[in-house]
Amino acid sequence: MQEKDFKVPEPTLRRLPWYLAYAQLVQRSGESFLSSTQIASNIAIDASKVAKDLSFVNISGKTRVGYDVNELVKVLEEFLGFTKSHKAFLFGVGSLGGALMHDDGLSQFGLEIVAGFDVKHELVGTSINRIPIHHIANFSELQKKTGINIGILTVPTDKAQEAAEIMIAGGIKAIWNFTPFRIRVPENIIVQNTSIYAHLAVMFNRLNEIDKV
Amino acid sequence: MQEKDFKVPEPTLRRLPWYLAYAQLVQRSGESFLSSTQIASNIAIDASKVAKDLSFVNISGKTRVGYDVNELVKVLEEFLGFTKSHKAFLFGVGSLGGALMHDDGLSQFGLEIVAGFDVKHELVGTSINRIPIHHIANFSELQKKTGINIGILTVPTDKAQEAAEIMIAGGIKAIWNFTPFRIRVPENIIVQNTSIYAHLAVMFNRLNEIDKV
Repeated sequence: MQEKDFKVPEPTLRRLPWYLAYAQLVQRSGESFLSSTQIASNIAIDASKVAKDLSFVNISGKTRVGYDVNELVKVLEEFLGFTKSHKAFLFGVGSLGGALMHDDGLSQFGLEIVAGFDVKHELVGTSINRIPIHHIANFSELQKKTGINIGILTVPTDKAQEAAEIMIAGGIKAIWNFTPFRIRVPENIIVQNTSIYAHLAVMFNRLNEIDKV
Repeated sequence: MQEKDFKVPEPTLRRLPWYLAYAQLVQRSGESFLSSTQIASNIAIDASKVAKDLSFVNISGKTRVGYDVNELVKVLEEFLGFTKSHKAFLFGVGSLGGALMHDDGLSQFGLEIVAGFDVKHELVGTSINRIPIHHIANFSELQKKTGINIGILTVPTDKAQEAAEIMIAGGIKAIWNFTPFRIRVPENIIVQNTSIYAHLAVMFNRLNEIDKV
């Protein structure tokens, strides 16, 4: 499936959580209305872009006053899928995998890790943050039982392609790939790449350039 | 400082770690040479883009055989800053902050979290993964003593701007912002936004669209 087939562009989907975060802040401060211009100036984005992004969401502002803040927060949370609980399996309980299992914040954004899988026998049968760890050999059976189709990929880079293939063969439809490896998948499989280490490279480079000034 | 002032474009810096991950894989398999065409076809990127990205790095390939794999890995790791140890402070030892302190993988990519800061008195004096947690009131003093200028921002959204201002006032030059809030900073401060939850929204939306097919 190509990017062009999707209704909402990815850049829009990445900006909407910024608007939500700002709207929640305004909500907490007790204000009732919020305009797209106000959002735009507070997060340094073009007002026309904010209005266009929000046109994908089912909400309409009132002339002069803008959007109802409570409604905007509610509609954005629902649109982004943060109010629904999406259950996921995690593959590779190493350092980053274990760290993600520790992060309860994910559940506030609609993701619940219900089990981890690994090949290390010393991990099997243990748990992190009350999430059980199983041997990868048990994945397919657990997938059939639960129907869970989201998989978080946190194995070592050299195992990423192999693990992705096992995930897909076992029924995973969406892979959240935290490895820096670009996995190859059939076109009906969703891949979301989140290589936090690649962001580090950008930061180091910018810091280095600034130090030279 | 504007993006245009930097020598290496951000998209290039984000793709180079993919090439590195693939080169490391090839290195482990025992191959000696790697061409940009080979990199391109294995990670589904245009060969001309790979060649252009690699032109920013100080390495030259040999006609017909390509790049020396060991040299490519070494040069890319150095260029991306992964071989140097960059010390950082973490602000906000909540769920995500604590998870990042658990992630030893960061040190393989050149980042070492040396202390966490929080306002919660019950956290102060404790540690996570042998990293001490101090009260935010001690940050400025510790910054002066250590000269650490990288700060990881993992406070709650409604504290993000305030925390960023404390960080900058205390000597932080680069902020790795994990909150979904768009902080406002002076132009000489580097901000790297890594909102992993925004990536979740993209994945949920794509999965939803596919389910409808």
